[in-house]
Amino acid sequence: TALWLYGHRPPADVTIEDVVRAADISRPLFYRYFTNLRELHVAALRSVVDKLIARLDNAGSGTFAERLHALLGELIDFAGACSDSYLALLRSGSAITTSDTGALVDRVREHVLTVACARAGLAEPPPALVLTVRGWVSLVEVTLVSWLRESDISRGWIESWLVEQLFTMLR
Amino acid sequence: TALWLYGHRPPADVTIEDVVRAADISRPLFYRYFTNLRELHVAALRSVVDKLIARLDNAGSGTFAERLHALLGELIDFAGACSDSYLALLRSGSAITTSDTGALVDRVREHVLTVACARAGLAEPPPALVLTVRGWVSLVEVTLVSWLRESDISRGWIESWLVEQLFTMLR
Repeated sequence: TALWLYGHRPPADVTIEDVVRAADISRPLFYRYFTNLRELHVAALRSVVDKLIARLDNAGSGTFAERLHALLGELIDFAGACSDSYLALLRSGSAITTSDTGALVDRVREHVLTVACARAGLAEPPPALVLTVRGWVSLVEVTLVSWLRESDISRGWIESWLVEQLFTMLR
Repeated sequence: TALWLYGHRPPADVTIEDVVRAADISRPLFYRYFTNLRELHVAALRSVVDKLIARLDNAGSGTFAERLHALLGELIDFAGACSDSYLALLRSGSAITTSDTGALVDRVREHVLTVACARAGLAEPPPALVLTVRGWVSLVEVTLVSWLRESDISRGWIESWLVEQLFTMLR
C-alpha cells in the first residue's frame, strides 16, 4: 500500500491518514509497527531496493554489451512490472540527497556504477568515466519515467537506444 | 537563509525552528509572512528559478554550438556562484515529481528543452529527440553536482565535455 501511495504522490503529500485508509487498518495498528511515516517510507523503499539489486546481480553472462543488455533488460522489466515501486523510488531520491530515503536510491545508482565498471574490468575508474556512467544512469532513470508515462516508444527500442548511448558517451 | 538551509539539508529535515534560529527572527515574524514551511520553500525556490531562467535567456548569439556553450556557461557560473541555491533546487526535485516544488524544478528543465529546440530550429521535436535532450539535461544536473562536490575537474573541461556529449547523443 505504501509503495502504491508513494508511486502516485510525492512523499511529502502522503499522510498517516492516507496510509491507514488505503490499507484499511486502524491508526493503533500502524503505530504498532512504525514510529512514524518516515519509517514506513524507508521500509517500503528498502524492500524495492533489495529486490532490484538482486535482479541486477542476476543479469547474464557473455560480452560486455550482452551483459549490459541483460542488466538493462532486468531494470526495464522491473520498471514495467512494478511501476508503482519504481516511481516511488525515483520520487524519493533527487539527483542530490543525503536523507535516509535518498541514500537508498543512491545505493541502486552506485550499484549500477560498480557492476558496470566491474564488467568493463575497471577496478579504479578515472573521474571522467565515473561522471559518464553516473550521467548515463540518470539518463536511464529519466528515459524509463518517460517510457512509463508516455510509452509511445517500444521496450526494445529503449533497451538498444540506452546501450548505444552509453557506448557513444564513453567514446 | 532558506536557500542556505535547503542547500545543506533535504527539505524534509528542515523545521520552522531551524529557519527562525538561522535567520535570527521570532516565530510570530515567520508566520506574518508565511502560513507554513512549504510556502517558504516554494517562495525561496521560485526566486532561484526566476533568476536562473533570466540568465539562460540572455545567453549569447552565434551558431548553435556557440549558443549552447553560452547557455551552459551561464548555468555553470550560476551553479558555481550560487551553489547553495542550485543544490537547494536540485534537492527539491527528483527526476519525477508532481509537487509544487518539483514543478518549479521541471520549469527549468522544460525551459532548457524549449530553448535548445528553438535554437536548433525545431518547433515540434520528435519523441526520441525530446528523450535525448531530457536525458542530457539530467546529465548536466548530475555533472554539476559532482563538480560542486568534488571539483577535481576544471570548469572549462565540464563545459566542453557537456557540449560534446549532447552532440554525440544526438548523433
